[in-house]
Amino acid sequence: MKVEAVVLANGEYPTAPLPLQILADAPYVVCCDGGADEYIRNGHTPNLIIGDGDSISEENRKKYGHLLHRIAEQETNDQTKAVNYLLSQGKRRIAIVGATGKREDHTLGNISLLMDYMRAGADVRTYTDHGIFIPCRNTCTFTCQPGQQVSIINFNARKLHGLGLVYPLSDFTNWWQGTLNECIGTEFTIEAEGEYLVFLNFPQPLPQSTH
Amino acid sequence: MKVEAVVLANGEYPTAPLPLQILADAPYVVCCDGGADEYIRNGHTPNLIIGDGDSISEENRKKYGHLLHRIAEQETNDQTKAVNYLLSQGKRRIAIVGATGKREDHTLGNISLLMDYMRAGADVRTYTDHGIFIPCRNTCTFTCQPGQQVSIINFNARKLHGLGLVYPLSDFTNWWQGTLNECIGTEFTIEAEGEYLVFLNFPQPLPQSTH
Repeated sequence: MKVEAVVLANGEYPTAPLPLQILADAPYVVCCDGGADEYIRNGHTPNLIIGDGDSISEENRKKYGHLLHRIAEQETNDQTKAVNYLLSQGKRRIAIVGATGKREDHTLGNISLLMDYMRAGADVRTYTDHGIFIPCRNTCTFTCQPGQQVSIINFNARKLHGLGLVYPLSDFTNWWQGTLNECIGTEFTIEAEGEYLVFLNFPQPLPQSTH
Repeated sequence: MKVEAVVLANGEYPTAPLPLQILADAPYVVCCDGGADEYIRNGHTPNLIIGDGDSISEENRKKYGHLLHRIAEQETNDQTKAVNYLLSQGKRRIAIVGATGKREDHTLGNISLLMDYMRAGADVRTYTDHGIFIPCRNTCTFTCQPGQQVSIINFNARKLHGLGLVYPLSDFTNWWQGTLNECIGTEFTIEAEGEYLVFLNFPQPLPQSTH
């Protein structure tokens, strides 16, 4: 998808090539509060900083105060405020980076929230240092590399069935039951009725040919 | 609880004081495959190494091969094999460290598996660098510090109600809905019928008295 905006959340700043590339290519970057500090330290200027400004450095709050969009309500986290803001501006195709890698409850929350963003109409993916989370509804097909590892996390889907995966799927309910699957070819399909989350582990580099 | 055994999983090696202390005090340590390398590098000797030996270094596989307990079946991960082994040896009170911090699907899986271990009779907790995951059934009470952050992740519980927490609970179904709560006093209770997971964020150090 052609990303319209990138949300830099306030987990660990990305280090893997793909999320860094997405951030570098972004036409519009919203930083979540303290996440702005490292983005600025890396020589960039956010288009917008979302949050209540309590975790950004004093210096950056002064210098970039005009970019700070304060949303006082406490019911949602900064990642959600950023996505909601983008949706209100008509930006639907959103990539999220920096959403994981610190407190595990924040990681769980940020990943789980992808389902809400999909329901709100966003075409959204989270790129971590290890792979890509894609919220899905009903039957979906993905391109992949042979041997690429994939995990499916069920939310409310029934009649789950995988085509092109090493292990078939079932109507599992516990998260781990769909983890650690593997692609057979260059495409796989998940047949389902309902919502689930796909994690595509970044493919390992192919062995160099010796010819 | 008095821990009978510690499982060192093969996520990130712990760096926070509490998981490192638990590892140092452990009466019995089971390392999951490659996790053994860093434990040995830190000057320790595992009591047992569980796995198929495919991610431990060649050197350690030779030197500590007598400690390697190979379990060939592919249906469970090494963390689960380690817990099942301990349960089969009558060791029920288990702490898990090093279970998070690498691939997020592994993190989700390892955390989710705590519910299965509880069902199998284990008294188990996972200690990360950020806090403690505790699988729970029905009404439970916890000691805490005022202001300590707590997240509740619902699996199949109903009639959820929190006492001693800033935000009351409801019968939420999406993971994030119970995250980012906070203790009011030195104890909180979760009333519930069914299973859920509690994450207790490590308390921030108390401000030093100036007297």
